Amino acid sequence: MENVIQYINSNKEKYIEELKDFLRIQSISSDPEKKSEMQKAAEFLMSKFSDMGFENIKVLNPGKGHPIVYAEKIVDPKKPTVLFYGHYDVQPVDPIELWTSPPFEPEVRDGKIWARGATDDKGQLYTHLKSVEAYLKTGNELPVNVKFVIEGEEEVGSPSLPKVLKENKDLLKCDAVVISDTSMYNEKTPSITYSLRGLAYFQIEITGPNRDLHSGTFGGAVMNPIQALCDLLSGMKDKNGRITIPGFYDDVLQLTKKEREGFKKLKFNEKDYMKQLNVKELFGEKGYTTLERTWARPTLEINGIWGGYTGVGAKTVLPSKAYAKISMRLVPNQTPKKVEKLLKDYLKKAVPKSVTYKLETLHGGEPAITPIDNEAIQVAAKAMKKAFGKEPVFIREGGSIPIVVDFSRTLKAPVVLMGFGLSSENLHSPNEHFDLENYHRGILCSAYFLNEFKNVK
Amino acid sequence: MENVIQYINSNKEKYIEELKDFLRIQSISSDPEKKSEMQKAAEFLMSKFSDMGFENIKVLNPGKGHPIVYAEKIVDPKKPTVLFYGHYDVQPVDPIELWTSPPFEPEVRDGKIWARGATDDKGQLYTHLKSVEAYLKTGNELPVNVKFVIEGEEEVGSPSLPKVLKENKDLLKCDAVVISDTSMYNEKTPSITYSLRGLAYFQIEITGPNRDLHSGTFGGAVMNPIQALCDLLSGMKDKNGRITIPGFYDDVLQLTKKEREGFKKLKFNEKDYMKQLNVKELFGEKGYTTLERTWARPTLEINGIWGGYTGVGAKTVLPSKAYAKISMRLVPNQTPKKVEKLLKDYLKKAVPKSVTYKLETLHGGEPAITPIDNEAIQVAAKAMKKAFGKEPVFIREGGSIPIVVDFSRTLKAPVVLMGFGLSSENLHSPNEHFDLENYHRGILCSAYFLNEFKNVK
Repeated sequence: MENVIQYINSNKEKYIEELKDFLRIQSISSDPEKKSEMQKAAEFLMSKFSDMGFENIKVLNPGKGHPIVYAEKIVDPKKPTVLFYGHYDVQPVDPIELWTSPPFEPEVRDGKIWARGATDDKGQLYTHLKSVEAYLKTGNELPVNVKFVIEGEEEVGSPSLPKVLKENKDLLKCDAVVISDTSMYNEKTPSITYSLRGLAYFQIEITGPNRDLHSGTFGGAVMNPIQALCDLLSGMKDKNGRITIPGFYDDVLQLTKKEREGFKKLKFNEKDYMKQLNVKELFGEKGYTTLERTWARPTLEINGIWGGYTGVGAKTVLPSKAYAKISMRLVPNQTPKKVEKLLKDYLKKAVPKSVTYKLETLHGGEPAITPIDNEAIQVAAKAMKKAFGKEPVFIREGGSIPIVVDFSRTLKAPVVLMGFGLSSENLHSPNEHFDLENYHRGILCSAYFLNEFKNVK
Repeated sequence: MENVIQYINSNKEKYIEELKDFLRIQSISSDPEKKSEMQKAAEFLMSKFSDMGFENIKVLNPGKGHPIVYAEKIVDPKKPTVLFYGHYDVQPVDPIELWTSPPFEPEVRDGKIWARGATDDKGQLYTHLKSVEAYLKTGNELPVNVKFVIEGEEEVGSPSLPKVLKENKDLLKCDAVVISDTSMYNEKTPSITYSLRGLAYFQIEITGPNRDLHSGTFGGAVMNPIQALCDLLSGMKDKNGRITIPGFYDDVLQLTKKEREGFKKLKFNEKDYMKQLNVKELFGEKGYTTLERTWARPTLEINGIWGGYTGVGAKTVLPSKAYAKISMRLVPNQTPKKVEKLLKDYLKKAVPKSVTYKLETLHGGEPAITPIDNEAIQVAAKAMKKAFGKEPVFIREGGSIPIVVDFSRTLKAPVVLMGFGLSSENLHSPNEHFDLENYHRGILCSAYFLNEFKNVK
């Protein structure tokens, strides 16, 4: 092990140069014109696996979407198996004029590497290739079997992955799925994300009269669909920030005392938070802290609303239709399906007879949790402590990563979210970057993880 | 008088041909490219007045907006004076492809004349020119002094008229202002509109966080500005359709028993109304009928709302801003100014600290009423009965005609809204038309009015 760590420490510069090669590839998955770049990124990875002596290197979805790259190194079928997941596709680069250095010409400045994909997810993903390589280059056998699944459609919602996972259940069999695509709690705090919220996203359409009416001639006599919509949306939350849809909280997994105490220790600074958002007061479910509200409590947000005249000046219209997009963030053990049913039941009763409505389900994603005391999580914690010289914290994430649920459900393995990124690293914005110290520690952490994981099971 | 009526009856065809000439002029006031057509329409009218031997024919606003045409025939300064107002400008014609015959090629079909401006307002306005002409052509002296003010900016909000009225107070002095730019209650019922609702139009902007946030990361912790806006708008009306803004009803002139009985006699058919609008239930202020609600009770309507993501599909945004356009229809003796103050006071208390707001006043217009027992109204009723062979009904109008208030305030004269149009005549839509029977009766009615008005004062 010692020479593995030594090797990693002495190859810092080489790792940066190699990552630059990876970052130069313009693998924007949403851009049809970048199809050859997607291919190039997949081939880049496959050649790296080939160089390391990996086997069974292949594309799991030939001809169907951007390539999902697979590679494995089975040292002993009796040993535990770790599956690393990551994605080589990146977000678009617009607005391009806001970038200090061009998005696909990686540059090192201030101890960071600047390029599209640096932190999301090429840099984070690459830590695992380099940790594995360190074992192989130093003549060590890998302590565990290693598999890689690296897709190119994460930024467009991973349309191919769920099916590929199901079709390759046996091939992908493993004892833990490790993903480095999340953020640390802050730049000084190594973090393990053990739970994610799910999502249930809907569109509501309210129809009042069959055409837009003159608000002078008809105002006061017919239900205005915007009014009905506002009444409806307003009625879905009470003054304490609780969602009023009957049964909504029934399946909610309550926070344990230990979790709440852990969150409390993070000393989340509400004043800074308010300052950053420029709000004078926070609002959320009564009885919970901000971290609890965003990480472990469900919410209902209105993501968009429209209806009537929205141009400049005054138009005296009483519109025929009004629309809203609303979404619930779900926590274990809620499900989008159950929540959809509850919403449907609610609307049936709550929508007044003076209008009609249509509900469309736009998106759903299950929440995820890997309990803190899970062995894989504990191994990750040990590895992090060694790599960062500090106990990691256990955090949750308010957003959703649908593929996490796909992996845990399909492969029946715990998912470990071991993120080396920072939320301040402009993922999805201009000037994306990745802290090079965290890049290095990430490689160390991955190496420690592989070594520690050999004892599992 | 008899020969005047005879003359009118024997010139039906000529009146139609002349109106066609007027309708051929493409006087769309909102279209900068139609400036010469506007000039043409003004000149058309001025030459008609000149032909009739009118005096003091001029443009009241030379070089400032579309011409406001003035003409007068003073027979005896001691006699009462009637001022006719109308407008020669018309609405745009889009969508042009929906017209059966071209909008500026007037055509007679099914007893109607089809063209843009036929009913709004060229046809209606022209009745008064022809009634005056009938007196003059038959060698009669006009029974009263007559003044005309005909503008070309009504469809764009009459920006020049209020100032022109103030500047020409003495010139325009009169004992009644007669306007034919409203609709009859239905095709069989001659109607006098004696009250109009006013308007107070606002835009509300709610700001939550200082930027759009990810609804996964932040959802549940900060007030969503759309939620705050919905709460606010929903809170402005109670379940009985009453506006909850304190003091809002204080100045409302209550309906008299006589008015309510009059409305009741109109036998308004709610079932037909619902069928036409395709709604299963009406909604409005409890304790009032539909006619009362739209004619004589104030209302608050949301004319537009927008915020967050409004495109196709799902975007998990917790937006920074949300907007609404709202307007109150006011009844005598409410004023836009007072209502604005009440709204401001209300918002100060009702908007939660978790967001900020901005209120913009977009438009205001006073309500108007000329009591039914006013002499000018009674004269109009007599004239209508003679022309239509039927007692007219006294109705109100839910919409606003701001210039009505300008006339009554500035000239301190009663305004008589003697409309010969029908709400079904597609004013502002393709296939605008004007019933030729009502055109003819309108000319008769105007002639009777002039004759009856001589006894006033």
